[in-house]
Amino acid sequence: MEPDRGLPSATDPAAYHFWVEEHIRFADLDLLGHVNNKAFTVYAESGRAAFLLKTGLWVPHAPRQNVLARLEIDYRRELHYPGTVRVGVRVLSIGRSSFTLGLGLFDGDACAAVAVTVLVRIDSSSRASVALDADERACLTPYLATGDS
Amino acid sequence: MEPDRGLPSATDPAAYHFWVEEHIRFADLDLLGHVNNKAFTVYAESGRAAFLLKTGLWVPHAPRQNVLARLEIDYRRELHYPGTVRVGVRVLSIGRSSFTLGLGLFDGDACAAVAVTVLVRIDSSSRASVALDADERACLTPYLATGDS
Amino acid sequence: MEPDRGLPSATDPAAYHFWVEEHIRFADLDLLGHVNNKAFTVYAESGRAAFLLKTGLWVPHAPRQNVLARLEIDYRRELHYPGTVRVGVRVLSIGRSSFTLGLGLFDGDACAAVAVTVLVRIDSSSRASVALDADERACLTPYLATGDS
Amino acid sequence: MEPDRGLPSATDPAAYHFWVEEHIRFADLDLLGHVNNKAFTVYAESGRAAFLLKTGLWVPHAPRQNVLARLEIDYRRELHYPGTVRVGVRVLSIGRSSFTLGLGLFDGDACAAVAVTVLVRIDSSSRASVALDADERACLTPYLATGDS
Repeated sequence: MEPDRGLPSATDPAAYHFWVEEHIRFADLDLLGHVNNKAFTVYAESGRAAFLLKTGLWVPHAPRQNVLARLEIDYRRELHYPGTVRVGVRVLSIGRSSFTLGLGLFDGDACAAVAVTVLVRIDSSSRASVALDADERACLTPYLATGDS
Repeated sequence: MEPDRGLPSATDPAAYHFWVEEHIRFADLDLLGHVNNKAFTVYAESGRAAFLLKTGLWVPHAPRQNVLARLEIDYRRELHYPGTVRVGVRVLSIGRSSFTLGLGLFDGDACAAVAVTVLVRIDSSSRASVALDADERACLTPYLATGDS
Repeated sequence: MEPDRGLPSATDPAAYHFWVEEHIRFADLDLLGHVNNKAFTVYAESGRAAFLLKTGLWVPHAPRQNVLARLEIDYRRELHYPGTVRVGVRVLSIGRSSFTLGLGLFDGDACAAVAVTVLVRIDSSSRASVALDADERACLTPYLATGDS
Repeated sequence: MEPDRGLPSATDPAAYHFWVEEHIRFADLDLLGHVNNKAFTVYAESGRAAFLLKTGLWVPHAPRQNVLARLEIDYRRELHYPGTVRVGVRVLSIGRSSFTLGLGLFDGDACAAVAVTVLVRIDSSSRASVALDADERACLTPYLATGDS
């Protein structure tokens, strides 16, 4: 659904080299008995948080933090309880003070949703955006999606 | 942030003719003390659900229902507790078996977020998409955004 | 259900002199179409948070905070969407370093649930409990339930 | 905290013979950076749902279902992200049309919370309580807590 990004592999598990797994909770079900659409955004958040923690871009109470500027999610397939969902994370682009993550939610190898999130690096005190420094860029670069991923 | 849609007024309360108001809950706060980004999607869902209920497109247990195919949200401004958030809803487009809603989240007249959601009309039993019929289109048309909104 | 407390009026709106109102959200529904049981605890939390804010016992980032030690909730009646829920709050007892709130959730005047929560006053840094001081007690006393409420 | 129940082992992992494990999610954190108190009730719900599914007392869309009549939770210890929480479930008592589950939430072997929930067996259509039948009792009996657990 994102032909303009040149990343047709967003629905392919092979596109991702960072993974977390979440248990689907009873609490995630909607009134139709399927996993509700907000739970998908929670799974994406779990992937995002784990990625930021692993790469060192999120350190609790640190002077520099990340805020979400944009979230897109394409729902492709229902998820069911009980079960697990695998969340793959990659970096789609690195800007001056922001970066874009691409996430894939999978039931086994079947893609249940694709998400794109734009995060802005901010100063915790002033809440103003700050330029990503060299170290921060170096944390993200290994996960940057390439044409051949 | 959506120049291609020709709807620069998404952040203007005047663009919306259907409104709901939500109380910001303590439960909506994140670990920084601001309303967390998932709560924004809940407010958007509240607007969407009220709109579908009002227009008759959502009737509990009816043979035709709506599923979310896509959600985009642009975060523009923090929201705080205690307070209220006003959610405006309009129809951006009507397709064969889907329709797109545009939502604005406001703190007073200040736009806190803009959301776009694509909903697909489905048969509840088969879960397959179905074409919107004339009655369903007539429910949506009064809320369709126009160039001069 | 709490005959031992000598407060048979927990299900009577007249027992409460502090009130907040919450909108029932679509997000609060469970897979049976009723408000799910966790949403009841969120409504109780809304009442508790508003009460603590109003009485001055909760000030964000203050050196003394409250932590929940115990929560009891008796479910008496289903709640439905759309609708509102009224939450009444009163003080059941004041201890050395803790206090107990009684909450009633109402649909109009019909009691949907009764909750009891025990809060412990702590030092934010050490996380250790601290004795309630005279000012804090004075904040709670006006809302203390009495035999004739 | 429940000396009157004669079950001093509620905080001992050895008391439980049915277990589920949950991943603590970023979404479970509160504004102090700890797992919020509502997430504890979600973990308890996960244990309850898995137990009911395993014992056959919960079958989606079946004519007999369970509704929560009461929930008690004692908070004993903070939980942190990232991490996992183990939820133990046992049956505390079996009544005519209701049964009581005891749950323990553990971080490793350290008890983070103890919960007690009363569930009422109902007819899905009428929503009225029904007596537990012999089969249903037989599903619960193996997990019934005894003096020597």
